[in-house]
Amino acid sequence: MRYAYLGPAGTFTEAALLGVEGAREAERVPVSSVPVALAAVRAGEVDAAMVPIENSVEGGVTATLDAVATGSELRIVREALVPVRFVLVAPPGAALADVRTVSTHSHAWAQVRGWMDRHLPGADYVPASSTAAAALALLPGAQDGPRAAGFDAAVCSPVVVEQHPELTVLAEDIGDNRGAVTRFILVARPDAPLPRRTGADRTTLVIPLWEDRAGALLEILEQFATRGVNLSRIESRPTGNYLGEYFFSVDVDGHVHDARVADALVGLRRVCPSTRFLGSYPRADHKDTGVAGQHSDGAFREAQAWVAALQGQRPA
Amino acid sequence: MRYAYLGPAGTFTEAALLGVEGAREAERVPVSSVPVALAAVRAGEVDAAMVPIENSVEGGVTATLDAVATGSELRIVREALVPVRFVLVAPPGAALADVRTVSTHSHAWAQVRGWMDRHLPGADYVPASSTAAAALALLPGAQDGPRAAGFDAAVCSPVVVEQHPELTVLAEDIGDNRGAVTRFILVARPDAPLPRRTGADRTTLVIPLWEDRAGALLEILEQFATRGVNLSRIESRPTGNYLGEYFFSVDVDGHVHDARVADALVGLRRVCPSTRFLGSYPRADHKDTGVAGQHSDGAFREAQAWVAALQGQRPA
Amino acid sequence: MRYAYLGPAGTFTEAALLGVEGAREAERVPVSSVPVALAAVRAGEVDAAMVPIENSVEGGVTATLDAVATGSELRIVREALVPVRFVLVAPPGAALADVRTVSTHSHAWAQVRGWMDRHLPGADYVPASSTAAAALALLPGAQDGPRAAGFDAAVCSPVVVEQHPELTVLAEDIGDNRGAVTRFILVARPDAPLPRRTGADRTTLVIPLWEDRAGALLEILEQFATRGVNLSRIESRPTGNYLGEYFFSVDVDGHVHDARVADALVGLRRVCPSTRFLGSYPRADHKDTGVAGQHSDGAFREAQAWVAALQGQRPA
Amino acid sequence: MRYAYLGPAGTFTEAALLGVEGAREAERVPVSSVPVALAAVRAGEVDAAMVPIENSVEGGVTATLDAVATGSELRIVREALVPVRFVLVAPPGAALADVRTVSTHSHAWAQVRGWMDRHLPGADYVPASSTAAAALALLPGAQDGPRAAGFDAAVCSPVVVEQHPELTVLAEDIGDNRGAVTRFILVARPDAPLPRRTGADRTTLVIPLWEDRAGALLEILEQFATRGVNLSRIESRPTGNYLGEYFFSVDVDGHVHDARVADALVGLRRVCPSTRFLGSYPRADHKDTGVAGQHSDGAFREAQAWVAALQGQRPA
Repeated sequence: MRYAYLGPAGTFTEAALLGVEGAREAERVPVSSVPVALAAVRAGEVDAAMVPIENSVEGGVTATLDAVATGSELRIVREALVPVRFVLVAPPGAALADVRTVSTHSHAWAQVRGWMDRHLPGADYVPASSTAAAALALLPGAQDGPRAAGFDAAVCSPVVVEQHPELTVLAEDIGDNRGAVTRFILVARPDAPLPRRTGADRTTLVIPLWEDRAGALLEILEQFATRGVNLSRIESRPTGNYLGEYFFSVDVDGHVHDARVADALVGLRRVCPSTRFLGSYPRADHKDTGVAGQHSDGAFREAQAWVAALQGQRPA
Repeated sequence: MRYAYLGPAGTFTEAALLGVEGAREAERVPVSSVPVALAAVRAGEVDAAMVPIENSVEGGVTATLDAVATGSELRIVREALVPVRFVLVAPPGAALADVRTVSTHSHAWAQVRGWMDRHLPGADYVPASSTAAAALALLPGAQDGPRAAGFDAAVCSPVVVEQHPELTVLAEDIGDNRGAVTRFILVARPDAPLPRRTGADRTTLVIPLWEDRAGALLEILEQFATRGVNLSRIESRPTGNYLGEYFFSVDVDGHVHDARVADALVGLRRVCPSTRFLGSYPRADHKDTGVAGQHSDGAFREAQAWVAALQGQRPA
Repeated sequence: MRYAYLGPAGTFTEAALLGVEGAREAERVPVSSVPVALAAVRAGEVDAAMVPIENSVEGGVTATLDAVATGSELRIVREALVPVRFVLVAPPGAALADVRTVSTHSHAWAQVRGWMDRHLPGADYVPASSTAAAALALLPGAQDGPRAAGFDAAVCSPVVVEQHPELTVLAEDIGDNRGAVTRFILVARPDAPLPRRTGADRTTLVIPLWEDRAGALLEILEQFATRGVNLSRIESRPTGNYLGEYFFSVDVDGHVHDARVADALVGLRRVCPSTRFLGSYPRADHKDTGVAGQHSDGAFREAQAWVAALQGQRPA
Repeated sequence: MRYAYLGPAGTFTEAALLGVEGAREAERVPVSSVPVALAAVRAGEVDAAMVPIENSVEGGVTATLDAVATGSELRIVREALVPVRFVLVAPPGAALADVRTVSTHSHAWAQVRGWMDRHLPGADYVPASSTAAAALALLPGAQDGPRAAGFDAAVCSPVVVEQHPELTVLAEDIGDNRGAVTRFILVARPDAPLPRRTGADRTTLVIPLWEDRAGALLEILEQFATRGVNLSRIESRPTGNYLGEYFFSVDVDGHVHDARVADALVGLRRVCPSTRFLGSYPRADHKDTGVAGQHSDGAFREAQAWVAALQGQRPA
């Protein structure tokens, strides 16, 4: 197996990938962006790509939401949850008192602002393309070494320090929100095997809104509500054509092999024919989906058998 | 074939039955009430029974609504619409000026009150078990002849006069509402052949409400609305247990062989497992059901094929 | 005070009226029909009229539903619940074995059919304009005394026997449904004082459906649902114009002085401008209306004050 | 007047601010981030701040959505739409063939990827804190002049070139989406004058979801739908507490002085008491809001007067 992930080595994304069974032994290819990772999947250069989809503090990862919503079809086959912990690192021998400029990815910067205001109130921020890239630039041997880097310290994942123990850790666990977590998805081609139903599953969908927003969104939600299908995530994204044209990225509780999910998908597809299915896969938190009796597989089987019997009556 | 109908001969119900192909040559059994007619069907004594279900002025015929909703299952296989025209009849030789008391069925009386107030303002009303029974009591040879009848004139259907030309017609077309029409249904046993889908069909259902009325009724209506199924009649009836416990008698546009109707029935049966199907049959007015594209059989076929393909993916 | 009621004396309606404070001392006018009773109210001949509106076995009383829905406005100021008990009475000295024919109102007949099938299986039915009229015709002194009556026994309310102890009671409590109850309403002119809010109130409305039934009914129910207003009764009635044109007669829990009911009425009146208000009055069963916090008067007051403050901001 | 805006000078945000009447003569304070701009408003250091809220290609500006949703209250008093056009600039004398590295803000980079792939396929990307900051670093006199900048060219707004004509424009209008537009909002303190109703207005709200998502969102949308209030934007944002806890940022058509909007706000506030009002203000595109008759101010007035009259009836 060959996996792409949002690199470089040492990012939270690599940490998510390392949690996949067999991934430590597999070939892991760091790439520079989510679109590049998914292009590698589509081109068959890798079997799957691990990319972030949402963060409990920052929200949806728009690059991912947009990249899976358009282009040729893809399938999510697994999800992973990674607690987000930040460390402040510097070149060997540096001290906190010496730090005037700090670099990291802008999302990480947003999550350590409180700590920075308290401990490094005057520090300037230098954007970086990833948390790991900022840290690696501080390594003695780096092409853009400490001086060229133009900054004194970096905010990154503890994984980087594991891989590069020569970095000095100036402070640990500096995130403003201790419970922060990022959710990652493993994305494969549409012919990948469909993950088995476990009873604690998630299904991800892309639903373009075809006309006025209020009525259309209500109609979509009612297709789910009448089958007792619960939404666990809903995000709107612009289609890019003009202000006010959206698609929705949605997670629902359940698997396409659950009768209630399958029936809701039939309804959804009818009222919104460009609906895209992105996969059914086990929840990383293994939280069972509660299903009311009238929406269980048994209730669907009984009701479908009843209607089939009515239809099967001898015709006049 | 043997048919029961709400008698005696000469009622609007017999007129409805005579419109059924082959009924003029068949055996026609007048019975004294709707429950008796349906009991004859259930017992196999007749093949089907013609009974009234609603009147454009008086509303639902509660005896029919209740009798088909309970007891062993039945099937509606046909409907008929009969314009309601009333005549005022009297014994041979009588004149309008002689009329002091008038008899008829209470429903008919309600529909001629305006005419009576204008033309026979002082006349007393004597209830009768049917319009025809009132008229027949006025016939010279009747067991309860004109004198014993205790009334001078009767309001009935023109059919009675066709069958008994010896009656004197004092006034024609005396109904207050000229467009009044009664809808009748032909009820058979559940193994009767299912009428073919014509594109202008009706499906009749009995839906018990299982709990609080407002939420439950909304939930039922949404099962129809999400499939684009239109209701053409909805009536509430008490279950007889206590005030506030109801069932609904409902007609929807379409046939159980229409995909949208079948899917709505599956949903309805799940949320309301005691739902009873009373039949799919052609509309007497042949009015085509308009179906929006997203609720057509084609849209269902496409969407179901899409979901089946998703489900059929090679499992992990 | 002067009250009309559906007579003659001895009906269940008189029993309902006698439960009204002061009614025993007031003038009570029996009339022959619901329309006549309400016409007397409209004409100012009486202060109010007691009429039946629904029965737990027979359902809505269509004459009442229709008469209050059309014509000049009226107000319901009180409701009463009367248990329905039937007795079988005969002329003095008669015995059950002598009974060949039985008379009563058709609604009462429907409620004693089970008893009749068991105890008088061969008896013929003779319709009467009211239960009391049937019984009174059996009295020795009656204009249409026992012989002229044309029947041997009558089914009526025990009230008749209280008033006419000379009648022989052949059997007591012969109703098929022991818990049967009829609900009556006391109807006055629209300038009658509005009953005070008690916390256990009912509001009655007439809602014409202005177009297609499914969507319109959903829209109406949502006006109630978004304010947490529960429906305790809903009945459809034909407008009389043509099959398929309806109005709804509806009871909701609460009083027009409850903020949630008032707000729902504003919404209802907008989407259905011909909505008619028939009154807010205490429930006869004194059952408190449960109201969720977000629909309480306090929640409305807070929210309205919030919006008023937003609107009251200094304009640009 | 004193305005803050997301700086430095030359950004699209400054362009939006310059469109505000009087802003050219007012004091304009560039600040480094949206939170800093809004903090200056809250602290009273400026009268208002211009910040971006959404982009037709990139979607919602999460820093803005989050900053106005929490902390002390703010009011949007104006919106502006700015077409997004990008130019590629370089130090004086440079040529396209010399460009190996390009810097700009990550959002801008996402919008010129297509052009870059076609015209500078091998170029490396260097993130910058703003489009203008990247361009200004290329100026001869800049502290981090062309060599120190570490990149050869920058993607920025044409406004920068107007202000610094010494920059060389290598290419114009290089955005992948020619119709791209960014919407900005002018944010003031809550005691700012409320913009007058124009008939083409927008109201912005923050709605925390208090429990399960599917049912709660449906309930919110129905509060709008029952008053005919249309949503023109809906975005979910994490509250930051844990995955799956959201608030919604919503724009609706209309002004808090429109009766239907006011009534919907009352309903919304009841079911969701932490709803936050962010302002009613004229639409930048002056597009009139279409309002169906039953949701007009006149319909509300009539219906409210009707209910008030019912409530005002003489009490019993």
